[in-house]
Amino acid sequence: MRCRVCTSRAAVEVRRHNAAFCRDHFIDHVVRQVERTIHEFDMFDHTDRLVIGVSGGKDSLALWDILHRLGYRCEGIYLDLGIDAYSTESGEYIERFVKERDLILRVVDLQDAYGFTIPQAAESTRRSPCSACGLSKRYILNEEALKGGYDALVMGHNLDDEAATLFSNVLNWSVEYLARQKVVLPASDGLVKKVKPLVRVAERETAAYAVLSGIDYEVEECPMVAGNTVNRMKEWMALLEHRSPGVTQHFLGGFYKVGSFDAAPPVLRSCESCGRPTTGERCAFCRLQELATRS
Amino acid sequence: MRCRVCTSRAAVEVRRHNAAFCRDHFIDHVVRQVERTIHEFDMFDHTDRLVIGVSGGKDSLALWDILHRLGYRCEGIYLDLGIDAYSTESGEYIERFVKERDLILRVVDLQDAYGFTIPQAAESTRRSPCSACGLSKRYILNEEALKGGYDALVMGHNLDDEAATLFSNVLNWSVEYLARQKVVLPASDGLVKKVKPLVRVAERETAAYAVLSGIDYEVEECPMVAGNTVNRMKEWMALLEHRSPGVTQHFLGGFYKVGSFDAAPPVLRSCESCGRPTTGERCAFCRLQELATRS
Repeated sequence: MRCRVCTSRAAVEVRRHNAAFCRDHFIDHVVRQVERTIHEFDMFDHTDRLVIGVSGGKDSLALWDILHRLGYRCEGIYLDLGIDAYSTESGEYIERFVKERDLILRVVDLQDAYGFTIPQAAESTRRSPCSACGLSKRYILNEEALKGGYDALVMGHNLDDEAATLFSNVLNWSVEYLARQKVVLPASDGLVKKVKPLVRVAERETAAYAVLSGIDYEVEECPMVAGNTVNRMKEWMALLEHRSPGVTQHFLGGFYKVGSFDAAPPVLRSCESCGRPTTGERCAFCRLQELATRS
Repeated sequence: MRCRVCTSRAAVEVRRHNAAFCRDHFIDHVVRQVERTIHEFDMFDHTDRLVIGVSGGKDSLALWDILHRLGYRCEGIYLDLGIDAYSTESGEYIERFVKERDLILRVVDLQDAYGFTIPQAAESTRRSPCSACGLSKRYILNEEALKGGYDALVMGHNLDDEAATLFSNVLNWSVEYLARQKVVLPASDGLVKKVKPLVRVAERETAAYAVLSGIDYEVEECPMVAGNTVNRMKEWMALLEHRSPGVTQHFLGGFYKVGSFDAAPPVLRSCESCGRPTTGERCAFCRLQELATRS
């Protein structure tokens, strides 16, 4: 196989684009996909101060690298979840990445700042580890982005992540979740603007990008991920994608275009503990924190 | 395994209901699922004159048998598609079924009545055989139901058929198709009321029902079905159902409940050839017929 651009020997095949690329043109291709997404959804511009939530995995580090290449002003936040060696190692990958590129990173240690770890939260609540983790990440990344006065919080969800979440929401016809599943969530009182510039890049493409760009990342999956619903949906979508290359992007892109789930936004008030927006009296994070720190 | 009702030896397991049944109680279970669907969606009552489109396969014959058991007044229409031995055999299964039960059947021969067969239509148009067949069936069954003055046209689509179609429509976000995918399509000018009482019964359950009820049906798949999209979707949904029994019904049932695709109905006018409702000048069936009978 030959590179679509320069006809030299190809390093990566992208079946859903019916194309192959050499190392340099593949990197270029991915960077342009991200740039196109940023422009198409009017996500941010070069005057904005951005912050990206980084986990140490391929997606967030690849995306940070791409934003850096494109000249955006983007800092990082790493939330140490307290998942033993996995969290320590993930933090080390990020530290190396940041040093090599002279980037700015904030680190929040869940145990130090909030008094619990994800394994503790999973044990002391009825939530699955992934649910406790997702809730904590959403809350704390928003908190840090607001404190830092950033214009937008950037998330590294890739095409497969978003399509699998969409798929799960459609299987359940969760109209509220479908209404909130947007590529740009505008800022509102107590909530920072949130954007997902990686939704046009498939998981294997971010992995290839990271490898070919020399980004060293945490390849191990989180040890607590067993039974994760989105992962199950991903495996299932991968079977369909294998038979019909492009169907995943067609499905996700079609959803963004249709946008017919504009359910009435929930009525929000201030959490009586932390003051952040919530639908109940106390927000889900404060309730999680109370249970996880009780013992 | 033991029957859930009488604890005698079970003949059929229904994993998605976490149940097993002996022959008689399985038949009873399926009949009750159909009865429940008829009532829940207020499809028809015992005073209505019904007509069912029968293909000679398990679904339509099982459904006709169930409606007969439940005491509904239901006649049948068989459309001979002209697919060689397959159509001849299918017709013979229906004839036997009808004789045994002393039911009334109308037979329409596509070649005699409209001058073409499905293989001819597929050859002379750009449509796939399944698309030409679906279009012809929809048109002619509606036509016959109107001519016969029936109150409703009953279709034998089962749970897996409907879920696979829904799935395909969702993958493409075909909002118009989603808006029309209903379990009851009310009558309108030139269109008979259409109902699908089998949407709570899975494909393997209608097959088991037919076998256990002694219904002899065409087990061969149509020889022209290769590449059918809905079949591909069915295979794919079956993988998910295998891992999460009940997900197919959850998906389809949730869609009926949400019903949020009430797109504006298309503006219809009368086809300049046949006078039936269409969005263009001539309806798709008249155009198909013209091409298929040209040579």
